Amino acid sequence: MNGSLIPVAEAREKLILVFGRRSIRAYAPGEIPEATLQLLLEAAMAAPSAAGKDPWHFVIVRQPDRLRQLAAALPHGQMLAQASVGIIVCGDLSVAHDRQISYLLQDCSAAIENLLIAAHAAGLGACWLGIHPRPDRMTAVHKLLALPADVVPVCGISLGIPAEQREPRTRYNPACVHRETW
Amino acid sequence: MNGSLIPVAEAREKLILVFGRRSIRAYAPGEIPEATLQLLLEAAMAAPSAAGKDPWHFVIVRQPDRLRQLAAALPHGQMLAQASVGIIVCGDLSVAHDRQISYLLQDCSAAIENLLIAAHAAGLGACWLGIHPRPDRMTAVHKLLALPADVVPVCGISLGIPAEQREPRTRYNPACVHRETW
Repeated sequence: MNGSLIPVAEAREKLILVFGRRSIRAYAPGEIPEATLQLLLEAAMAAPSAAGKDPWHFVIVRQPDRLRQLAAALPHGQMLAQASVGIIVCGDLSVAHDRQISYLLQDCSAAIENLLIAAHAAGLGACWLGIHPRPDRMTAVHKLLALPADVVPVCGISLGIPAEQREPRTRYNPACVHRETW
Repeated sequence: MNGSLIPVAEAREKLILVFGRRSIRAYAPGEIPEATLQLLLEAAMAAPSAAGKDPWHFVIVRQPDRLRQLAAALPHGQMLAQASVGIIVCGDLSVAHDRQISYLLQDCSAAIENLLIAAHAAGLGACWLGIHPRPDRMTAVHKLLALPADVVPVCGISLGIPAEQREPRTRYNPACVHRETW
């Protein structure tokens, strides 16, 4: 049976989760239950991956000392010290399609976006903190988390009870849309 | 005002769009209205990007001849010839944060995942077709779409009225989850 188009207004309403996902950098204290984390990871691993290789890994950090060490290792990651949970998203180059860093980054980034949307759905605030391709950040995180040689840290995600509210939005720019050719 | 946690069952229900987004490769004939495409692009450009650089570009292809040429250029992209619309997602290296291909790929991949979720929300079937880092595919797409030198084609997305149904799922794998350290 073929599917059918859904009216735009209805589809837009369903996408409130996507438009409402914003970078939240201020957190109130509060536990994040394991069941909530599990949902976030299930959403992350629902992303597509090149040749179905699923090269992603997720290191969940709850210990305040380790969160502070990660915050110190990431120049824009100070909020990790206030976060309830940090997740370091990594890719295993030995598993990525054709061992290509490009596929590893694409697969992990799709999973990260799903995870951020899921965090918003669960009422959490989250922020994507860049690690790859900065050598200093990669080396520090590699050491702090005892990552194997083939494992590439891609980003950190800080998670907490949001202490700021941000409105849904898009940064849609018509200059980025082309027809038929550039 | 601080936010608050949403019960897991409720959050899971809201995430049906994320779990229901599957790679759909069979399409029935049918037009995709401009307003629907616009919604997909708004969702894509709601993704986060490194240092807010938004290096992404989207080339919308509707002409059957050009769709067939793209299908011929992409080894696993034959379904583009049956698609109502193809979108080639590109990144502008001269705009990407610090001119790093890593950030370009991460930013575009987050936007692609949003676009795929939006396609599912709109009742469309869609599939992510790899282009980067394959030199032959990149060269062919560059030429077909007359891309500027600094613009990197990342992937193609085929879009159409779905002629197959796939169940929501996750590929959650507990071996990909680590605690505190690897």
